[in-house]
Amino acid sequence: MKTQVAIIGAGPSGLLLGQLLHKAGIDNIIIERQSPDYVLGRIRAGILEQGMVDLLREAGAGERMDREGIIHDGIEIAFEGRSERLDLKELTGGKTVMVYGQTEITRDLMEARAASGQTTLYQVPDVAIHDARSDKPYLTFTHEGQQVRLDCDYIAGCDGFHGVARRSIPEDSIKTFERVYPFGWLGLLSDTPPVSDELIYLNHERGFVLCSMRSATRSRYYLQVNLAEKVEDWSDERFWEELKRRLPEEVAAKLVTGPSLEKSIAPLRSFVVEPMQYGRLFLVGDAAHIVPPTGAKGLNLAASDVNSLYRILVKVYQEGRTDLLERYSEFCLERIWKAERFSWWMTSMLHQFPDMDDFSQRIQSSELDYFVGSVAGQTTIAENYVGLPYPDIR
Amino acid sequence: MKTQVAIIGAGPSGLLLGQLLHKAGIDNIIIERQSPDYVLGRIRAGILEQGMVDLLREAGAGERMDREGIIHDGIEIAFEGRSERLDLKELTGGKTVMVYGQTEITRDLMEARAASGQTTLYQVPDVAIHDARSDKPYLTFTHEGQQVRLDCDYIAGCDGFHGVARRSIPEDSIKTFERVYPFGWLGLLSDTPPVSDELIYLNHERGFVLCSMRSATRSRYYLQVNLAEKVEDWSDERFWEELKRRLPEEVAAKLVTGPSLEKSIAPLRSFVVEPMQYGRLFLVGDAAHIVPPTGAKGLNLAASDVNSLYRILVKVYQEGRTDLLERYSEFCLERIWKAERFSWWMTSMLHQFPDMDDFSQRIQSSELDYFVGSVAGQTTIAENYVGLPYPDIR
Repeated sequence: MKTQVAIIGAGPSGLLLGQLLHKAGIDNIIIERQSPDYVLGRIRAGILEQGMVDLLREAGAGERMDREGIIHDGIEIAFEGRSERLDLKELTGGKTVMVYGQTEITRDLMEARAASGQTTLYQVPDVAIHDARSDKPYLTFTHEGQQVRLDCDYIAGCDGFHGVARRSIPEDSIKTFERVYPFGWLGLLSDTPPVSDELIYLNHERGFVLCSMRSATRSRYYLQVNLAEKVEDWSDERFWEELKRRLPEEVAAKLVTGPSLEKSIAPLRSFVVEPMQYGRLFLVGDAAHIVPPTGAKGLNLAASDVNSLYRILVKVYQEGRTDLLERYSEFCLERIWKAERFSWWMTSMLHQFPDMDDFSQRIQSSELDYFVGSVAGQTTIAENYVGLPYPDIR
Repeated sequence: MKTQVAIIGAGPSGLLLGQLLHKAGIDNIIIERQSPDYVLGRIRAGILEQGMVDLLREAGAGERMDREGIIHDGIEIAFEGRSERLDLKELTGGKTVMVYGQTEITRDLMEARAASGQTTLYQVPDVAIHDARSDKPYLTFTHEGQQVRLDCDYIAGCDGFHGVARRSIPEDSIKTFERVYPFGWLGLLSDTPPVSDELIYLNHERGFVLCSMRSATRSRYYLQVNLAEKVEDWSDERFWEELKRRLPEEVAAKLVTGPSLEKSIAPLRSFVVEPMQYGRLFLVGDAAHIVPPTGAKGLNLAASDVNSLYRILVKVYQEGRTDLLERYSEFCLERIWKAERFSWWMTSMLHQFPDMDDFSQRIQSSELDYFVGSVAGQTTIAENYVGLPYPDIR
């Protein structure tokens, strides 16, 4: 087989990149280790920056999002009995975020992909990357029992943190930056109306809470939990009870509970590799970096990588300009590190840390007090939350 | 002896409080363990917030400051080969800081004190505080070989971190918050023209540098050093050489060196006690809190405590309102913690930490990159640097 761009991973990054390239007349094949249902079953992010919203529209996959997504122009930050609304729209000169679940985006992109006629191969094991540093890289993998070779010009590694793309780069060619947090998030998805119209980020002495949502009838709640906790020990009843204990009374009184559709514990991690490329292999999204979910940046960062790689490849194929290829990592990393910083900071500011001394606790309170109480402080949160500008590829 | 307000410590806080009270017709006596020359010999801060400038004027001790002090409306922050100017004035809607040395302030306040006719007793050892929780507190001390008792209504502890005031509060009545940093500042004062018109804060891989000044002909430079360093090992030559190695080439080229007037190593510490009062004893400035000097907040925080205590005592003596007395600590602490946060943050952002891992290093770079590159980020630095508003005492 042969294509211009081989994309490893049919999650939202791979699908979005494939769709954008296709629209620009660049042939691509996506290969994915799992089945479509497995990919769709992943319950992940749901807050889209304007940049990602625009990119989905550009990819021709924004129609249902524009119909069903919910624009949010504020978030609540609550701590020590206070609750402050950050008016994202006013603070950023009109920018907002959109609530639309990752599962829905994946579904829309899958449909667009099907309509495009471009090849997507699912349930493909044994993927290996070859000759990434040559002019003629290729992939090998198993498809329907056959060993397949896919020749290509470029390879996009959109296969996530555990994927093959990053692991196939020699260790001495990349540097890893990592922080593991001493807690996890226990998430629950339910078909209940959200407790609030906007997201609530809460720093409570029993642990962080996020009240989020996927739609007007589907809620997503998270509780900070000890890493030793097991999801089996958390009945729905226990989850709702703990959530009510942490929420301010007037919010708890409005909480509608119901059976969980999904419940899981995720560890929190910050992770970056530098550079994000190795010859003609380019890492995109979670394959290159992980943020703790507190800033709602994971999926959005992947989209900004997609944007950079897409625009660079368009220059390559439409203008014959290959000089930008080697700058992909540089273009991405400045924005990634700012998002890593924001996500680390939101995490640091809003969680209970087991080893926090009295001074650190007061500093955390004062951070919240200052940043939420100052227009400039609020603006730093808001402008990061709605998303910093995409790199200027030219 | 008898007075209305007994003030322990004749540093700038004690003198400023005494002067303000005197102007308001409130009798006070200051006692100081050291001699006037010793107090004047302390080389300390030199950057005054607008609030402190106004307070010195209100105390009638601002005349020479207004003549000789230098208004600064910007600072430079330099890192990784970049140097960015923060326009304090523009970012804060017109606020600035004034460069005027603590020694000069002390001298001006001493002169004002002498003119006021209020009593100041120097070289007073053996100070003890009695019955602070009663209606009739008093001090005892030795003066000119005699044991003296000073009866008063209220006691202001302006005697610094090592003074008697905080130490005379029972340990179980206050809580201590502390952070010790793993480095110190080696400072050098010289009669040389400053290398730059404005202060330069520099994060260099060899350690932090501050290029500061006291006047157009007197410079103050600081180098981050290991806590194990001894000032005896730092000849002037070695200091200037190390400074030049850290400064950007074009700045180093302009550096004028000369013999040091003073050279010393100070450890960096964050420290707060809560509450800042015990009965009729009120802690002011360094007696209650220490900040690392990176934010130029130490003296300014003392001034804002003086402002709060002064305005509360005016209400007591002029309006008979004693209800505010018990809220002194609360009035002060909100602002103090914000200044502690800012000073901790500036310290964290600008210094090399020996135990920093790769992730933390990138976060530090990204903090600088984001905060210095965003108007909102710059504004958070600027509004803290020029000083947050004083507590509203009413």
